[in-house]
Formats: sequence, structure tokens, C-alpha cells
Amino acid sequence: VADAPLSPRNARVTAARRLLRARTSEHEGRFLAEGPQAVREALQSDRAVDVVHETFVSATGRARHADLVDRAMALGIRVDDVDDATMADLAGTVTPQGIVAVCSRVDVPLDAVLARSPRLVAFLAQVRDPGNAGTVIRTADAAGADAVVVSDSSVDVHNPKAVRASAGSLFHLPISLDVHFAVALDRLRTAGLRVLAADAAGERDLDDEADAGGLDGPTVWVFGNEAWGLPADVRDACDAVVHVPIHGRAESLNLATAAAVCLYASARAHRHGHASP
Amino acid sequence: VADAPLSPRNARVTAARRLLRARTSEHEGRFLAEGPQAVREALQSDRAVDVVHETFVSATGRARHADLVDRAMALGIRVDDVDDATMADLAGTVTPQGIVAVCSRVDVPLDAVLARSPRLVAFLAQVRDPGNAGTVIRTADAAGADAVVVSDSSVDVHNPKAVRASAGSLFHLPISLDVHFAVALDRLRTAGLRVLAADAAGERDLDDEADAGGLDGPTVWVFGNEAWGLPADVRDACDAVVHVPIHGRAESLNLATAAAVCLYASARAHRHGHASP
Repeated sequence: VADAPLSPRNARVTAARRLLRARTSEHEGRFLAEGPQAVREALQSDRAVDVVHETFVSATGRARHADLVDRAMALGIRVDDVDDATMADLAGTVTPQGIVAVCSRVDVPLDAVLARSPRLVAFLAQVRDPGNAGTVIRTADAAGADAVVVSDSSVDVHNPKAVRASAGSLFHLPISLDVHFAVALDRLRTAGLRVLAADAAGERDLDDEADAGGLDGPTVWVFGNEAWGLPADVRDACDAVVHVPIHGRAESLNLATAAAVCLYASARAHRHGHASP
Repeated sequence: VADAPLSPRNARVTAARRLLRARTSEHEGRFLAEGPQAVREALQSDRAVDVVHETFVSATGRARHADLVDRAMALGIRVDDVDDATMADLAGTVTPQGIVAVCSRVDVPLDAVLARSPRLVAFLAQVRDPGNAGTVIRTADAAGADAVVVSDSSVDVHNPKAVRASAGSLFHLPISLDVHFAVALDRLRTAGLRVLAADAAGERDLDDEADAGGLDGPTVWVFGNEAWGLPADVRDACDAVVHVPIHGRAESLNLATAAAVCLYASARAHRHGHASP
């Protein structure tokens, strides 16, 4: 049953709203996850009570997402009612879906990622567009990647657009944040992963690489900024620079689709071995 | 050299601005292509003078895209100067890039597509999001598809967001519009193409399909609406319903990334044959 909505000036509402500022969010170690998809996946995390601190629902959200409200309450997680204007504020989108959760920011130390002997890792190097970052996280999850690593000069994956694009995958696989590019690459390579940069200017063709068995072992794929591609020093630090073949007249693929083709080529090589025609 | 900018009430400007309305655009058979990437590809079309009717540039656009202005003038295509406010109006975006072109709407009859014995076709069935539609067109172009076919209930591919997402590919490969789904599928199948629906609920796994040689022949991939997937009658009309394998915990891929994985699996099968481990 809904209580009276909290005042927009209520201390919990005010504290939650402040998490929309990146600096506050970082300082508090918490962020706002918006919409039923993100909230559902947060509530289904392994240690959901450590991940989800409280939730806010509008009247519409409470009616429409009763399953999530029930699950939060069963876990002893607070559910507070807010009016539509407050929900719109907290959701940070023009089309709020009636439910937001205050969650712990994700960040798994690189050591913990390496301790699990990852076979497929996506590395976001200077990815600036939050939609692209979120979509690559979703795609890496789907392709069975063991982790996502994000360089210190990339967009914040807790940005509302990134959270939305990740479609809940932010809560599904370990994500290491703010790693220094060169240091992280060294450690991944020392741990036995082959480092492949995905870049339209790469000298190797993805299909040839797959045919030659180059994708059969543990691999980290490095994806850069769509507009500039990867800087020369990043490309040089990788074991090979691979391009997705362009068979038609398009100049390039967008970052998220190129990442999908690369990650799924690795997933296929890991499961089916390489073609031997 | 720039002339004085046209008045916002100039007849050419007014006529161009009206093309932002879908109905006027359809009626006139013309649309506004915004930004240097789209304008460049339009100007590099086979019969550019039939494709591009006139261009408008802001002072910034004229300076920044001098190569395009020169090319248009060399082809005898009119280049008119407009002020920044008029450019923002015509561009239909909050970040105009200083150049727009009045172009003929794309639409190649399905007969003409079939006459060229296509081996790979992307079929957009009820795709509603313009960004997704444009991205699939770009990806189909990159993957070497011979054509894109768009059902009568899909988004208009001339929508500014779709044009932007297509990154010029709208002008690269034949696109058939407003086809009736069932009629078009029958004709594609009669022309010897295997019809595969891409759907998360599909009973066949993409990798298994590739291994079994199911992608080796001429293929049309049918992509539906991200939110609902494909309607049952559409799935039933296809030769098989195929899902991209989900190896992790993601519920699904987004439409554009799923399409990229499917189209590139076909491109690989057509060029490298299927794996025979």
C-alpha cells in the first residue's frame, strides 16, 4: 500500500537527487539506477542488500512494478513514495518509468578480475559517449565476457544514459573502473591475455585473425573513442590491431556494433574453435 | 565566396524547411540530408545531380566544408548561404554542422533489387526507432549487403535521426521502401533467398546455423522492433527463426548490435564458407 508521497524537500529525496551530480555520486559511492530493468537486475544481484540501499516509486511505478516493490520489501529494502515531479527529477530523463534505486557504485579491483582467470575481457579506452559505453557493457555481458575494464579517461558508467543503455548488465559482470591504460594492459598481458585493439585502421582483418586461430586463447579487446579511434600509443601497446572488414561502401561501423562483431567472434572461437576449411 | 545569407523567409528556405514535415517530404519526393557525412555521400552518388537538388551552408559550414561546397559547385548544384538560426532550423538538430542538402528520397523498386540477384538483404519489419533503422542500414552497408528492404509499418528512413545514424550509407546501397511484408517475403523467397528471422526467442542458435551451412546461400535477415521482437505471423512466414546466443546474463542484445552479429555471420559464411572442425 502506498504511503503519502515524500515531500520534494525530504532529506532522503534531497540526498538521492544530489547523486545525479557525478562528484557527489563518486564521493558517496552511490548512484541512481533508473527504470524497472536496472532496478530488477540490481535486486537480483548476488548480495542485493549491499547493492540496493533504497528505492523510490511514483504512484504509477508502484502499480506497474509491483513485483519489484514486493521484492525490495522482502529483502528489507526501503520503498518510498514520491510524486510525479519528484520522480522526473530523480530519474534524470524526460520519460521516467516510475522507479529508481539508490545503488552502490560498481567497481571491482583489477586484481579480483584477474584472480578469476578471465578468458574474454572488454576494455573501454577513452570511450566518451555514455550510450556507447552502456551498449558495449550489455554486449560484453551477452557475449559471455568475464569482465569489463574502463580506463580513467572514459565516461562514467554510472551516467544515467550509460545505465539505461546497459539494460541491467552493469549489475551482471565485474567492472573495473579508472584503471590506468598502460598499467592495466601490462597486468592483463602478464595474466596471459592477448591484447587486441579494435580499430578501423588496423592492419589485420577480423576474419583472417579468427581463421588463423588468433582468437582461440584468452583475449582482451580494446575499444576506443568513435570519433578519433584509438590513439597511436594505445595501438602500439597492443599485441595486434584488428579491423572489422568493411565489404561495402560504409566508411566504418559505429563503436557498439564493431564491438559486438569482435566480442562475438571471440565467443565463437572460444566455443567452436576456428574454421579449418 | 559567400553571398549575403538568404532571408529566413526566402522561398527556397521556406520550401526546404517544409521538407522537415514527413508528409510534405513524401509528397515532394525530397528530404533534407544534414551534416558533412550525409552531404558528402550524396554528392558522391552515381548520379549525384539527380540526387542532390541544392545545398545550404552557414558561414561556419562554408569555411569548414569547403571541399563539399567546391564539389557541389563543380556539379552545377546550387549552394545558398543562410544564417546560423536558419541553419539550426533546417538541420533539425541542436548541434547543426553547417551544411544541409535537399536530396531526392531514396526508394528502389523491389523488382530492381531482385534483378541484381542479391545474396544478402536486410529486411526491417516494423522497426520504429530511427536511430536503430539508420544504424542497421550503416551496418548492412559495411557487411556488404546488396540491399535493405523496409516494411510499410517501419519508421521513415529519411527521418533526420535515421539519416544521421546511417552515416551516409543511405546513399550507398539500394533501399526499397513501404513494401508489404508478406508479399515482399514471397518474392524474395521465389528469387532464391532463404528467409531468416532474427529474434531472441528463435529456436536456432546463430553459431549452429553457421556450422550447419545454413548461412552459405543467399539470405534475407528479418529484423523487428526492439521492444516486442517479431510478431508471430512474421516469424511463421520465415524459413527459420534464429537467435544470437546469449552466453552471459544479459536478457538480450539491442536491435542494432544483434543485426550486426547476424549480418557479419552471413558475410563471413559467404566469403570463408562454414567451419568444418
